[in-house]
Amino acid sequence: MHNRLLEIISVGNELLTGHTLNTNAQWMSRRVTEFGGVVKRITVVRDDIDEIASSIKESLRRKPRWIIISGGLGPTYDDKTLQGLANALKLRLILNKDAVKMLRRKYSKTQDPALTPSRLKMATMPAKARPIENPVGHAPAVMVKQGSCTIFSLPGVPSEMEAIFAKHVLPVLKRNIGKFVRLEAELETMGVMESVLAPYLDNVVAKNPKVYIKSHPRGYSKGVSTLHINLACKSTNVKLARGYLKRAIDQMKESVRKAGGKVRTI
Amino acid sequence: MHNRLLEIISVGNELLTGHTLNTNAQWMSRRVTEFGGVVKRITVVRDDIDEIASSIKESLRRKPRWIIISGGLGPTYDDKTLQGLANALKLRLILNKDAVKMLRRKYSKTQDPALTPSRLKMATMPAKARPIENPVGHAPAVMVKQGSCTIFSLPGVPSEMEAIFAKHVLPVLKRNIGKFVRLEAELETMGVMESVLAPYLDNVVAKNPKVYIKSHPRGYSKGVSTLHINLACKSTNVKLARGYLKRAIDQMKESVRKAGGKVRTI
Repeated sequence: MHNRLLEIISVGNELLTGHTLNTNAQWMSRRVTEFGGVVKRITVVRDDIDEIASSIKESLRRKPRWIIISGGLGPTYDDKTLQGLANALKLRLILNKDAVKMLRRKYSKTQDPALTPSRLKMATMPAKARPIENPVGHAPAVMVKQGSCTIFSLPGVPSEMEAIFAKHVLPVLKRNIGKFVRLEAELETMGVMESVLAPYLDNVVAKNPKVYIKSHPRGYSKGVSTLHINLACKSTNVKLARGYLKRAIDQMKESVRKAGGKVRTI
Repeated sequence: MHNRLLEIISVGNELLTGHTLNTNAQWMSRRVTEFGGVVKRITVVRDDIDEIASSIKESLRRKPRWIIISGGLGPTYDDKTLQGLANALKLRLILNKDAVKMLRRKYSKTQDPALTPSRLKMATMPAKARPIENPVGHAPAVMVKQGSCTIFSLPGVPSEMEAIFAKHVLPVLKRNIGKFVRLEAELETMGVMESVLAPYLDNVVAKNPKVYIKSHPRGYSKGVSTLHINLACKSTNVKLARGYLKRAIDQMKESVRKAGGKVRTI
């Protein structure tokens, strides 16, 4: 299990003022969950060195196998993630030669190729860190190990985060986590209140320990209560997972009908 | 400052599998920020009693004035927030008589008014907690104090969370935080890379300590770099805030032009 545990730390004031919706964390969570990883926690912190450092230290204490940080790698004064990461790991910040090479290659193609202090800031990383090429933007991402935890620090710009995640993070995670499938189904029920369905749900849950089941109230439409029921099964064996899931779906549907509701797969 | 510090804890596996986007946290952050509150951290945890309890204890250690929890108040087995909250505060869970009354009123209007164990679960709260009427759904929200921190626990269904927040939480926050205004502006720059603008930005930031300024790269359109620059000023005095913000906007615009870019307010 430990190999599959991951935490996400999102850095950025804009996520805490409501200016920006945290779609990055959702995107990563979905990718990680799809192949059997488990996102245990998401933490959102401000662009503040101490906040970044303390959130990383707190996360390390919970002993996830992976931490993925996004945001705060850019060239401006408010991009503070690498300093926070260095403080958390008690490492010095040093100019990373490989990262400088990456930046030189990128900026040499522009009209203004000088490696100014603002640009070199993006190559100034915790000692021990390994830079990861950014195929979309400029700021390299960072990988660094701390004990049994591997930390990735990715940019906050979604297109850059997604490209680096797909190309460099996902293969490493998959290699370590192994082959898992996660099958999922969603039912919609009409005409049965969640509080009425609850004991039936408990019963189906108890009978299907391999299947994760959760109900989500979707409010009332013309006085009729609507629920969505999410069912998921994770396994190294697709055929087994399919069987577990089907059995739980059938029992769930039967329960909804017994409770007086209508049900369909959506 | 302490009076204005708030943390949000979002409870729900669906937020950690990527099934659901955490719009609740954004919605609350925006409301809190608008009137001068400061969301210091957002934590997302699974539907797990120990995870919920430990996230609340960790938050209390950071000494915010307010904690708002959302999610996990419903009638089903996976709604575990009140048990987690009770554990975090070392309080017993008891059947709250006022909450039972609220539920009785609500269900008495339905065809099936019996207060079953699943329904009474929603009225089973930490001792000391005060139930808050839910104007939209069934599950009452909860308010409980711990030292100098006030904790609100709200449902996760957005319409219910929003209604209770607007009617019962916001007035309490406003009364305690006082009268603040927060003015905001957004500029769009074209044709200047963030790494080129960085030193100009530093300069404007240094000259405008009352204004919060942050650049957000928006990628390249036809080879032209686009940035959004967010400027915000918080004050008890609207006129002063307007003046501070205007000065920073003017300086920022001038800087972008000096750096070779185009700029407009959006």
